[in-house]
Amino acid sequence: MAGRVPEPTFTLEGWHLLHDFRHLDFPAWLAAPKGEREAAWGELREILAEWARVEAEGRGSFGVFQVITPKADLLFLNLREGLDALLEAEARLNKSLFARYLRPAYGFYSVVELGSQTGPLDPEAPYVKPRLTPRVPKGGYVCFYPMNKRRLGGDNWYLLPARERAELMKAHGETGRKYQGKVLQVISGAQGLDDWEWGVDLFSEDPLQFKRIVYEMRFDEVSARFGEFGPFYVGKYLAEEDLSRLLGVA
Amino acid sequence: MAGRVPEPTFTLEGWHLLHDFRHLDFPAWLAAPKGEREAAWGELREILAEWARVEAEGRGSFGVFQVITPKADLLFLNLREGLDALLEAEARLNKSLFARYLRPAYGFYSVVELGSQTGPLDPEAPYVKPRLTPRVPKGGYVCFYPMNKRRLGGDNWYLLPARERAELMKAHGETGRKYQGKVLQVISGAQGLDDWEWGVDLFSEDPLQFKRIVYEMRFDEVSARFGEFGPFYVGKYLAEEDLSRLLGVA
Amino acid sequence: MAGRVPEPTFTLEGWHLLHDFRHLDFPAWLAAPKGEREAAWGELREILAEWARVEAEGRGSFGVFQVITPKADLLFLNLREGLDALLEAEARLNKSLFARYLRPAYGFYSVVELGSQTGPLDPEAPYVKPRLTPRVPKGGYVCFYPMNKRRLGGDNWYLLPARERAELMKAHGETGRKYQGKVLQVISGAQGLDDWEWGVDLFSEDPLQFKRIVYEMRFDEVSARFGEFGPFYVGKYLAEEDLSRLLGVA
Amino acid sequence: MAGRVPEPTFTLEGWHLLHDFRHLDFPAWLAAPKGEREAAWGELREILAEWARVEAEGRGSFGVFQVITPKADLLFLNLREGLDALLEAEARLNKSLFARYLRPAYGFYSVVELGSQTGPLDPEAPYVKPRLTPRVPKGGYVCFYPMNKRRLGGDNWYLLPARERAELMKAHGETGRKYQGKVLQVISGAQGLDDWEWGVDLFSEDPLQFKRIVYEMRFDEVSARFGEFGPFYVGKYLAEEDLSRLLGVA
Amino acid sequence: MAGRVPEPTFTLEGWHLLHDFRHLDFPAWLAAPKGEREAAWGELREILAEWARVEAEGRGSFGVFQVITPKADLLFLNLREGLDALLEAEARLNKSLFARYLRPAYGFYSVVELGSQTGPLDPEAPYVKPRLTPRVPKGGYVCFYPMNKRRLGGDNWYLLPARERAELMKAHGETGRKYQGKVLQVISGAQGLDDWEWGVDLFSEDPLQFKRIVYEMRFDEVSARFGEFGPFYVGKYLAEEDLSRLLGVA
Repeated sequence: MAGRVPEPTFTLEGWHLLHDFRHLDFPAWLAAPKGEREAAWGELREILAEWARVEAEGRGSFGVFQVITPKADLLFLNLREGLDALLEAEARLNKSLFARYLRPAYGFYSVVELGSQTGPLDPEAPYVKPRLTPRVPKGGYVCFYPMNKRRLGGDNWYLLPARERAELMKAHGETGRKYQGKVLQVISGAQGLDDWEWGVDLFSEDPLQFKRIVYEMRFDEVSARFGEFGPFYVGKYLAEEDLSRLLGVA
Repeated sequence: MAGRVPEPTFTLEGWHLLHDFRHLDFPAWLAAPKGEREAAWGELREILAEWARVEAEGRGSFGVFQVITPKADLLFLNLREGLDALLEAEARLNKSLFARYLRPAYGFYSVVELGSQTGPLDPEAPYVKPRLTPRVPKGGYVCFYPMNKRRLGGDNWYLLPARERAELMKAHGETGRKYQGKVLQVISGAQGLDDWEWGVDLFSEDPLQFKRIVYEMRFDEVSARFGEFGPFYVGKYLAEEDLSRLLGVA
Repeated sequence: MAGRVPEPTFTLEGWHLLHDFRHLDFPAWLAAPKGEREAAWGELREILAEWARVEAEGRGSFGVFQVITPKADLLFLNLREGLDALLEAEARLNKSLFARYLRPAYGFYSVVELGSQTGPLDPEAPYVKPRLTPRVPKGGYVCFYPMNKRRLGGDNWYLLPARERAELMKAHGETGRKYQGKVLQVISGAQGLDDWEWGVDLFSEDPLQFKRIVYEMRFDEVSARFGEFGPFYVGKYLAEEDLSRLLGVA
Repeated sequence: MAGRVPEPTFTLEGWHLLHDFRHLDFPAWLAAPKGEREAAWGELREILAEWARVEAEGRGSFGVFQVITPKADLLFLNLREGLDALLEAEARLNKSLFARYLRPAYGFYSVVELGSQTGPLDPEAPYVKPRLTPRVPKGGYVCFYPMNKRRLGGDNWYLLPARERAELMKAHGETGRKYQGKVLQVISGAQGLDDWEWGVDLFSEDPLQFKRIVYEMRFDEVSARFGEFGPFYVGKYLAEEDLSRLLGVA
Repeated sequence: MAGRVPEPTFTLEGWHLLHDFRHLDFPAWLAAPKGEREAAWGELREILAEWARVEAEGRGSFGVFQVITPKADLLFLNLREGLDALLEAEARLNKSLFARYLRPAYGFYSVVELGSQTGPLDPEAPYVKPRLTPRVPKGGYVCFYPMNKRRLGGDNWYLLPARERAELMKAHGETGRKYQGKVLQVISGAQGLDDWEWGVDLFSEDPLQFKRIVYEMRFDEVSARFGEFGPFYVGKYLAEEDLSRLLGVA
């Protein structure tokens, strides 16, 4: 490979994301004195109101989800303009009264990313800005998973010529386009930021679509040969009234 | 592989499944005041009655199992028409008095799946509907394990032509048919839903059949070359009176 | 591999085994009030007496071992005629007073297995029955480890012709025979029952023999190419008086 | 490979590093009596003052960081002239009042390293000494990750001729130089000291630079073929007033 | 490989070793009433005196070390003539008052081993006996790590002819000899005894030597192709007065 010139992917970066999955200690929560629960719920509502204000002002987005299986109970998903604001959001929750009933389950830090194998992307293009600053849909379901591109023997993504990577990604994009209107995809890069190279968020009104798109895509050569997938988390969006019902608070 | 056209598997989806494995804190349970245990048991019986009602109304199915080895003590297995009903079942248990004595052990979310490598399945075919909405047998034993199809070097399931996959699955099906009447198999897909691609439930009156079918199938090329297996959980069905005996409650 | 006919191993199955490894919370045990320790010890002795009765009546066997390293402190090893009796033994211990001082460390469920690559075994042969219902030696040491046969690229046990498997196992058996009289081997199958395909128990009067037989066997082609080994647990048999001394009870 | 002569890398070693990642039990901290918190904070400030004195006297360096995601809350990063001083720093923190609210998250012990594939480095060269005794920047962000060089089939770093390793590292260095002034890199060796062969610290005023440099470098052949990466930790530098604000103490 | 005759390594075995790594709960220890700490320290000194007596009588050796990073705080290293004496030493510590403040971190059971690829070793040779019954140096530092020899595709140690293994080990030994006087190596075998095939202890007055010898050896073909390494633990020898200072007891 002497003389080989690396051909890195061209990327644009947008909002920073924190996926903050938590266990909820239901027995401790339900056994807490009424006053303590009310105070904790009141403070949690304040936090959600702050996050809603951030979203209204175009400085980020957020969503709370009820997660299936004991991997986690709740997902607090936040997008912000930078790392500092995410650290503040994480600490705000950790220092709240409600945190007494939470235990960490899993977390992931990444940055929304648009990538191109063939040349630099135009940050002024009309479709770019909104895709770099995506809003969390206020309903439906989320599917989150981290992933790597494989570097193993003959299947080494990072040694492929850019042209070959472009072809593989193009075919993959075509599969994705079949799900337009059914599944919203947000890709974030985590190289240098977390243990996997990317995070993927899928949003849909129907969780079956998560199964269909992931299964169909696995037959794309780029996934079949190069995709390495981490844990999958599926959750249902909780509006404030849904959350209060789950927590059993007025 | 230029020009290769992906040939995804055709699938039909049925009920959603939640495998909810729990540890039971026996010392805490047995040391609890009689009144608390009675209240917890009473509420647990109400939950089981609700789930029985769901099953009677054809909106799902359920079973409780005593699991061998310290991997878990109890399995709460629920099938429902959608994710919302599973989230409710999970939260119902988490918010119950009995949950004070439970700790999470393992969980898996998947959707009953019929698959075909050769063409779309007919959802109206007579054998299809019952297989998409299977009932948990009310007796005997369960064996659950998650699995993947391998994508490694020359052994990459998702790059095989559909015709080759069909042949391999056909031979596999023949091995399975030898166990007809002895083992009931329920296959569920978890692509995009959980950490493995499939969940497999085997139900039998004799746990030795789990050993025999799994061992024999491992010699099928599809398992030998492409099967990657997760943890195996084996349990015995608990009718309400069995559960009350295990818990030492009247 | 078109037209390949799978050639599964022929097996006979015997007693069901539960390896139940536990941590002992020594500080909590030693700090417990004398009355509680005496009650817990009295109940534990009853359990051991029940298990001895089962063994005397030919319905199983058992042994308690002190395990080296913090992986576990105690091993409760039970063999029974079926899964139900093992579930009862496990629950009996979990519901005992002594369980307050135990925490799960590791467990394994399997079934004693005799295998042949060349043809069905005769269940009536004189050497078969005793090997399917082995007694735990009442002294000396135990070494337990689970294992798989590899299925990786060119080293795929389950794709080998039965004849080749037979030759490899024969050479392996010859190595084993050198240790006759020094090491008693009990092989149990766990396909469909637990996370590894087999469990191996070695019993010997001298723990150095575990090192010698395992090291020598690793040079056999069947182990070198196809053996995948899980954790190893080594323990010393505890007669009731040894256990009482370890626990500091009269 | 008969007659092959190993060609080890030439290295110079500098300060010893301890990365000490901790969870902070926020609920316990915030619920502690005011007097206890003040005493703990007072003692922590003394420790930081001691570490600042060590740095002022040229005997080491240090920094405290707020870590994103639940992998850790705080990083205490210390560099010293030898292992004894690091053991003292670790024990000093462990024995402090503040340690009641900390739990271990992750740690890494390594030694600052300059390496050359082509010949011994001159310890008297002007650029060497400062690079062996780097100061932690007092602001901005840190990215830490451990890594190995792969030894797998045809991709075995340690079997490459020194000349080939030198070419690969030279190309890698050129990628690194593009980030001069944006990212400060500190490489430390951990062979024989910790579970990975190297630790990498990146310091920058902008966390996006971590993503860019790591992503771009992954296309270098030395990373693509030979890099194996452990967990990534990203944190923000905390001056004493930032730490007091995070902890809610005056 | 028909007709291949396995060529196992010839070994001699010496003392049995237990590496018993522990976490110390500093906050609980420091918060304990003075009387309890004094009683616990007094009993711990008795244990150390017993172990010193065993060493004085030539029936074993021991050392206590302060371990860097949160992987462990203390290492209790014991060598004895057999497993029974190690089980007693482990139980003695577990049953002591000081154990209330310890939690298990990691452990390893192995037996000192001299190996030869070419023919049986002479147990009467003058250099053999002392190497089979090594004393723990009473000062300096320890580096411990477990390891395997690889069995993967073309890199399968156990399928190599003995002559080739001998050549590889000879070259490796030459690298080791460069460190004579700087690093004392103790190799112990754990086949059939613990989860890795060997344990390696390095003792030195200078922890940098651990880094140098391990790094240099990694370029030896036997390590580069066949070495698989577990976790590395580094600690500093604690004489009784050092331990009392660490614990803050008179």
